[in-house]
Amino acid sequence: MYGLIGSFKAAPGRRDELVALLLAGTGDMPGCRSYVVAQDPAEPDTVWITEVWDDAASHQASLQLPAVRAAIAQAKPLIASFGEHRVLEVVGGHGLCGESHEAPQGGGDSPRDSR
Amino acid sequence: MYGLIGSFKAAPGRRDELVALLLAGTGDMPGCRSYVVAQDPAEPDTVWITEVWDDAASHQASLQLPAVRAAIAQAKPLIASFGEHRVLEVVGGHGLCGESHEAPQGGGDSPRDSR
Repeated sequence: MYGLIGSFKAAPGRRDELVALLLAGTGDMPGCRSYVVAQDPAEPDTVWITEVWDDAASHQASLQLPAVRAAIAQAKPLIASFGEHRVLEVVGGHGLCGESHEAPQGGGDSPRDSR
Repeated sequence: MYGLIGSFKAAPGRRDELVALLLAGTGDMPGCRSYVVAQDPAEPDTVWITEVWDDAASHQASLQLPAVRAAIAQAKPLIASFGEHRVLEVVGGHGLCGESHEAPQGGGDSPRDSR
């Protein structure tokens, strides 16, 4: 599975608006096993997103979905800067939609930075 | 909800062993909504864990579970160093056990994984 961990800073005072946009866009994304939006209590403008996808291709395809494209267009002006960005190979765990627990995943995808 | 993002480096050559231990310990942890173990293709010894819990107390309580204590004891000698460590406030998303999609969480329920 393909994993992403990213953080970014919202424009001052726009974090909640940005978070709401990100959450509204997470409904129907084929191949998305987990998409979690979090705030950092220590850095009030910072937003973290962790994602798990079947593979890099399913993540890439999601960026073409009309709802996602619209959310990205709306979110862009609310983002002041990007922080952490990790592309990972997810091995397993708990809370991965469409998968039984702890089943290690074959994979074969090639992680790509698609920001 | 309470979120954790952490990374650490396995002792040389012990990453797969460490990952297997971490995955074996993620079965029955009350209050755990997501627990994802990932590897970093760019840093072969590095392991990332992202976790979502009902609250800090449920995470804290998990550390006293016999299975978790045993896993920690076994894992310790396999860890060379700790890296990233973020404590976050999870707002919502997709793939959070015990919760419907995108619904910001009110709390009060005790989610159990029934998949």
